[in-house]
Amino acid sequence: MAQNRPCVVVQEVGLRDGLQSIAQTLPTADKLHWVDAAYAAGVRHMEVASFVPARLLPQMADAARVVAHAKTLPGLVVTSLAPNLRGAVDALQAGADRVVAPISVSHAHSLANVHRTPEEMVAEFGRMRAQLADSPTQLIAGLSTVFGCALQGTVPQADVCRIVTACLDAGADTIALADTTGHATPLQVGRVIEAVREIAGVRLTAMHFHDTRGMGLANTVVALEHGIREFDATVAGLGGCPHAPGATGNVAAEDLVFMLENMGYDTGIDLARLVAVRDIPARALPQEPLYGSIARAGIPATYPYQP
Amino acid sequence: MAQNRPCVVVQEVGLRDGLQSIAQTLPTADKLHWVDAAYAAGVRHMEVASFVPARLLPQMADAARVVAHAKTLPGLVVTSLAPNLRGAVDALQAGADRVVAPISVSHAHSLANVHRTPEEMVAEFGRMRAQLADSPTQLIAGLSTVFGCALQGTVPQADVCRIVTACLDAGADTIALADTTGHATPLQVGRVIEAVREIAGVRLTAMHFHDTRGMGLANTVVALEHGIREFDATVAGLGGCPHAPGATGNVAAEDLVFMLENMGYDTGIDLARLVAVRDIPARALPQEPLYGSIARAGIPATYPYQP
Repeated sequence: MAQNRPCVVVQEVGLRDGLQSIAQTLPTADKLHWVDAAYAAGVRHMEVASFVPARLLPQMADAARVVAHAKTLPGLVVTSLAPNLRGAVDALQAGADRVVAPISVSHAHSLANVHRTPEEMVAEFGRMRAQLADSPTQLIAGLSTVFGCALQGTVPQADVCRIVTACLDAGADTIALADTTGHATPLQVGRVIEAVREIAGVRLTAMHFHDTRGMGLANTVVALEHGIREFDATVAGLGGCPHAPGATGNVAAEDLVFMLENMGYDTGIDLARLVAVRDIPARALPQEPLYGSIARAGIPATYPYQP
Repeated sequence: MAQNRPCVVVQEVGLRDGLQSIAQTLPTADKLHWVDAAYAAGVRHMEVASFVPARLLPQMADAARVVAHAKTLPGLVVTSLAPNLRGAVDALQAGADRVVAPISVSHAHSLANVHRTPEEMVAEFGRMRAQLADSPTQLIAGLSTVFGCALQGTVPQADVCRIVTACLDAGADTIALADTTGHATPLQVGRVIEAVREIAGVRLTAMHFHDTRGMGLANTVVALEHGIREFDATVAGLGGCPHAPGATGNVAAEDLVFMLENMGYDTGIDLARLVAVRDIPARALPQEPLYGSIARAGIPATYPYQP
């Protein structure tokens, strides 16, 4: 295998997006074990928690402990979600390297998810920016429902561009685009990236695809062609959105790594060890369905593809 | 929706590839119902049978009846598989518009599947060509295990090119490339198409992807970018290969149509009516798992994408 393969970041977001819509609370020890196992597999970017009030989301009551533990692992870039100023302050105190603010482009989803309009969330994002101004912590504008919304239907591209502009004006370090509800398809992915790239340039860095309708990897191929080099995914494809009926999980990290490495990209991740991380949710969350094709079909002898 | 969208052919191959590895024989009446329902949904290309001895594959004992029925539907292009001269003669007599000969590039898979080496199959293909010389029936060289093989492992690209050349020399009308065992990934798909295109030009027409490792639609995106405009798929993603352990089904036709129409291609297929075809295997083959994301998650209100 060539030494100079281009790198692609696979950010494992199972402990945040994978768990947030699951009723059963994953014990803290399992979360730390999950972080350690993913790290041992070579994962160097993880979104490990959401700083929200524990009464609203008991699953995330141990966010500070999980972030603090993740920060003990050398070279691990630790990201936390924070839906408001208070959460950003907590994430900063816990030591997160990056804070991502979820900003729904869909008005209906924004109200359901954070009880604020998109414009109110952008204003809150500005307050988060001011709070983090003197810290090295990066602030990511994580736009959700970018490609459609289960509640609202179509999400106009013009609305996406308007929110991107507002977030950049408010001081976003980077922009990430999320297909929260599995509406994105390849042509649209290319069009939206092109439009956002015009506004955000290199500050558009990452995509977050759900695999609700099986389009996650096809969309990833198009995003790669448009220069995106960071993708969210979860072990076993866990995930969904509590405010998006029928939405199943994120892209399975194992399948994503399999595809990327076979395409000549360097993810730094050992696929067999990543597959083994599935044992943690399989044991600790026995009622949750696990997704992903590689774990079922096996890693073929031809992996990775040698052109 | 614009009137001049580029056309892409989705060939439904459920009655051939979907059924050939299933122990339970689907009654002829259900097969005819399946053909009618797919046709009513707008499908205009179907591979409906395999002409093999009934003692080897009882599932296909009614091949001639199924082909004859399919031929009563105006404008339906009816394809049959035939692994040898005898099968091609039978397919021709039954009235098939196209006969596809399965030619494994993998030596090991070829022996397991048709008890002949690839070279022996190419020689048989020449005899099939001579037999069909005076008929309008098209003869397709359907190369299988093009991207890897569960038995042999790597399938060298040079072997693919050698068999393509031999099939063209033997008089193939067109070439179709199959990922029989779900080994293909996007970079490889592009490389192989480019190499085969150099040899076959416009006679390389079709791809047949299995979704064993979840790569079917990602591979399709790359094939589209390389000019391929015909794809095999099965309703509910039925299928597999009896001689490829762990190989699960074909790309689900519903998911493929969803993606293609959202990408601006015209398949001529009504997605909701295609999803409804699933009722036939669901009822008649209750022990078979049905695959496909669109049927589970639903067709969103945003379908089809309007750029």
